[in-house]
Amino acid sequence: MQTKKLKIIPLGGLGEFGMNCLALRWEDDIIVIDAGLMFPESELLGVDIVVPDITYLVENKQHVRAIILTHGHQDHIGGLSWFLSELKVPVYATEFTLAYVEGNLEENHLLDETTLIEITPKEKFTVGTFTIEPIRVTHSLVDCVALAIDTPVGVVIHTGDFKIDLAPLDDKAFDLHTFAEYGKRGVLALLQDSTNVDRSGYTPSERAVIPRLDEVFSQAKKKLFFSCFSSSIYRIRIAMELARKHGRKVAIVGRSMMESSEIAQDLGYIDIPQGLIINPGQMRDYAPEQLMVLISGTQGEPMSALSRAAVDNHKHAQIDAGDTVVLSSRIIPGNEKSIFRVIDHLYRRDAIVVCDDGSNGMIHVSGHGSQEEMRLLINLVRPKFFIPVHGDYRHLRKHAQIAMETGAVEHAMVIEDGDVLELDKNDARKKDKVTAGRILIDSGSSIDVVEELVLRDRRVLSEDGIVMAVLAINKRTGKMQQAPEVVMRGFGGADITEEARELVIKTLDGLSGEEKTDYGMVKEKVRAELKRLIQKTTGRRPMIMPVILEV
Amino acid sequence: MQTKKLKIIPLGGLGEFGMNCLALRWEDDIIVIDAGLMFPESELLGVDIVVPDITYLVENKQHVRAIILTHGHQDHIGGLSWFLSELKVPVYATEFTLAYVEGNLEENHLLDETTLIEITPKEKFTVGTFTIEPIRVTHSLVDCVALAIDTPVGVVIHTGDFKIDLAPLDDKAFDLHTFAEYGKRGVLALLQDSTNVDRSGYTPSERAVIPRLDEVFSQAKKKLFFSCFSSSIYRIRIAMELARKHGRKVAIVGRSMMESSEIAQDLGYIDIPQGLIINPGQMRDYAPEQLMVLISGTQGEPMSALSRAAVDNHKHAQIDAGDTVVLSSRIIPGNEKSIFRVIDHLYRRDAIVVCDDGSNGMIHVSGHGSQEEMRLLINLVRPKFFIPVHGDYRHLRKHAQIAMETGAVEHAMVIEDGDVLELDKNDARKKDKVTAGRILIDSGSSIDVVEELVLRDRRVLSEDGIVMAVLAINKRTGKMQQAPEVVMRGFGGADITEEARELVIKTLDGLSGEEKTDYGMVKEKVRAELKRLIQKTTGRRPMIMPVILEV
Repeated sequence: MQTKKLKIIPLGGLGEFGMNCLALRWEDDIIVIDAGLMFPESELLGVDIVVPDITYLVENKQHVRAIILTHGHQDHIGGLSWFLSELKVPVYATEFTLAYVEGNLEENHLLDETTLIEITPKEKFTVGTFTIEPIRVTHSLVDCVALAIDTPVGVVIHTGDFKIDLAPLDDKAFDLHTFAEYGKRGVLALLQDSTNVDRSGYTPSERAVIPRLDEVFSQAKKKLFFSCFSSSIYRIRIAMELARKHGRKVAIVGRSMMESSEIAQDLGYIDIPQGLIINPGQMRDYAPEQLMVLISGTQGEPMSALSRAAVDNHKHAQIDAGDTVVLSSRIIPGNEKSIFRVIDHLYRRDAIVVCDDGSNGMIHVSGHGSQEEMRLLINLVRPKFFIPVHGDYRHLRKHAQIAMETGAVEHAMVIEDGDVLELDKNDARKKDKVTAGRILIDSGSSIDVVEELVLRDRRVLSEDGIVMAVLAINKRTGKMQQAPEVVMRGFGGADITEEARELVIKTLDGLSGEEKTDYGMVKEKVRAELKRLIQKTTGRRPMIMPVILEV
Repeated sequence: MQTKKLKIIPLGGLGEFGMNCLALRWEDDIIVIDAGLMFPESELLGVDIVVPDITYLVENKQHVRAIILTHGHQDHIGGLSWFLSELKVPVYATEFTLAYVEGNLEENHLLDETTLIEITPKEKFTVGTFTIEPIRVTHSLVDCVALAIDTPVGVVIHTGDFKIDLAPLDDKAFDLHTFAEYGKRGVLALLQDSTNVDRSGYTPSERAVIPRLDEVFSQAKKKLFFSCFSSSIYRIRIAMELARKHGRKVAIVGRSMMESSEIAQDLGYIDIPQGLIINPGQMRDYAPEQLMVLISGTQGEPMSALSRAAVDNHKHAQIDAGDTVVLSSRIIPGNEKSIFRVIDHLYRRDAIVVCDDGSNGMIHVSGHGSQEEMRLLINLVRPKFFIPVHGDYRHLRKHAQIAMETGAVEHAMVIEDGDVLELDKNDARKKDKVTAGRILIDSGSSIDVVEELVLRDRRVLSEDGIVMAVLAINKRTGKMQQAPEVVMRGFGGADITEEARELVIKTLDGLSGEEKTDYGMVKEKVRAELKRLIQKTTGRRPMIMPVILEV
């Protein structure tokens, strides 16, 4: 007779960064931890986002009891609409995380039909066989938790993303005691964030950026633009406090920044004094040295407020000579070219640029723990089995090695997406594999029904045809050298090539000189316009790939 | 009456990294400093290399007297064949640089018709109005020079690429004295390398990598694979000396590594003891701990020896569990994905990977000077005008600021590609612009006549048509999910779509399982095969873009 086993089945984030998702199964009960997305590599043309292949969950639909979210970053919650379009299950998350999720589900018209359940650190809840205790951790975002999951064969702890910030800005401490308690009682398996496994030492507290940013504020003579990830609530709070200290009003520019600040304010994470915030339209009533502009777009995203301001194409955010622009964030690998393009544009406007290139002091810190924090948590939890999560294969391997070196774990095991790890009280071993992989989604800029999300599955897409628009742009003049070439494939019926060509010409004519030099933006605009035309005319949603030839 | 002016006209490398090229003009005499290439951004699909637009030089062909090369890196010499196909002028360079140039010109059948003139540090030579003194500088490559150019309005010094290595491995010192002499006598303009302007302090000597690499060699229990840029002659020398010290034979794998080592040995830069080098075929005669394999491919180039070895597809270089792989080089921004893909494959082979990720000690140092070296050279040269070269716009700006802060220059001026800076003894000002830009070249893997190079000009290419091959690959099985879609445009005549589709299928079938997971390699192979077919059948050389859809 086969004894019952606990199954740990990673579906995303073990073998790549992003699209974090992991299933835990005991008999007929499955719970899912996180439902993230990732942003595509440049090789995956014409794709907007990537989510995990959840075939396994869909095939076992009737057993999936819940999705539990550790925190509100896109690589943990961004695939949720996609998941929920296939699985009708309740979603558990902390208050702040739910606020992000609600916005997202509302956009996709999924909010009404989804059961959202708020969880609170230290308050256990039960889903099927599992009793789960959220444990407060610190990270670059607020209200993040690890999960201690009590199963019939022992406790499994999943850290989510964490650093151990011993002086958090909101005084909500990393709950060392609860981890220690579990460690004392005995933990079967610890699944721990591997993101910063290459960094020795200890990640500095979020507070560590204050002194240098304070200096930057002191030195700014004119307007000060402050950009960070819109989810970096602590960072936004620091910027606002510094603005107040230095006598600057705050204008918030960019949709994600606006939404995020509002949520943070509503939930009490930022305490904004009366009169600090002004509408972007009011900026003209103040002298430059009285203004701070909180602006989205640290990664050089082509349509973000900062990218547009950098080429002098934003209604409110005008960057003038002598203004200071602070990019308080890291450069996500792969975004270098876009970010540096924006920075070069800022220099051409004679702005003073302060970015995290190693030469500007500590204006950004990571939200992920370094090696010492990894070791500390392993020492507290002392699990029998250690399983690294969140990272490329090499990170998982290195993390496993670090864990073994602590002497506090019995076995460290590297598993990847699709592996099935079976555990009982004494043993853990890799069994057969389940379906795992990436689903590429071309969401366009305006998803408003979830069916669209589903349709964007690339398997469907490739049947919906492909459109390639080739633009030969003269580098010197920014003008098109010849009529654009539009190639369409996989369409029955109407030939709208000519119309498409004219649209491309018109779109390019509508761009400013500086916009034309930003190929990211050119492509994005051409893609959006062509998509609109083709959908309207044919009802199809082909993959659209603008290609720029410089001549 | 207009007084005569010296014109400084950058055509590449001022506003981007790579494709360095700068013209100096006095009346009817033009000299060109460097003729580099750059590697394309991912946005420029289907392009292999990028060279500067030299319309200005071609239009003034009869006045161009010489191309003078500062050193042998591709971003300084890689565009030379392209230049020489348009301009028949002599090329001046040091002995080692000429050895690289010769190889390159021979490949393009240009060697016989080109006049190559060897130059030597401290030995002045005259070209038209200009008298030029090469000054020895240190860099990651050997035999590099700066150029002091005596013109009718004063001396202009161009640093080329440099660091100030005060303990160079070959005892060929950075010639501080000559720079100081010029500084004492008075220098009109200094054009200085901006590459590392973001780094404070001093770049360590090339020797600084020896202690840590020595440790790595001590700890290696089985085969040791050592990869670095093939032009890093000092690094190759260090690796060979360590191999000898630790009782390992050296097998050299990869064409560029082989050529480079040979040149370095011929010219006395590496002194290889009898019996140290073995043929790759002899590796099986030695125990793993008796072998070091010097292998090309630090940047994860899809067809390089290391990339192939990583997926177990190299005839000689077989990487087994417990082997050590050292990547003694930096990660060039933009190459992260390819490099980390290779590293993940190495981990899957259970190799020990030592790369420059910040966690492995000093296994690589930069070849470019940091801020203190920039300041030191400015202090020695004390030019009236300072002009930063080699960098994105922001680097040039920052470098200009650093120069002004030294107090040793009168004016620092930022100019970009195509600007014309006019100087006399007292004054320098930006005048009108000349044509400048990038020429995108799809060289394929086998250029053998220079006419091909010229044909690959994208202006011609876009008339030669476009081929897009869309492969829907199943992520899990690595197999094609449906027949490939081949779209051809801009072809008259023969329809070879069906043949092309079959070829794509055949090509994919010929790849190993691991190769199939490496999309870079898949694309490269598909591109090469399609190119061959289309050229053979139609005589055309269209732009070929393989697109992979994961399903």
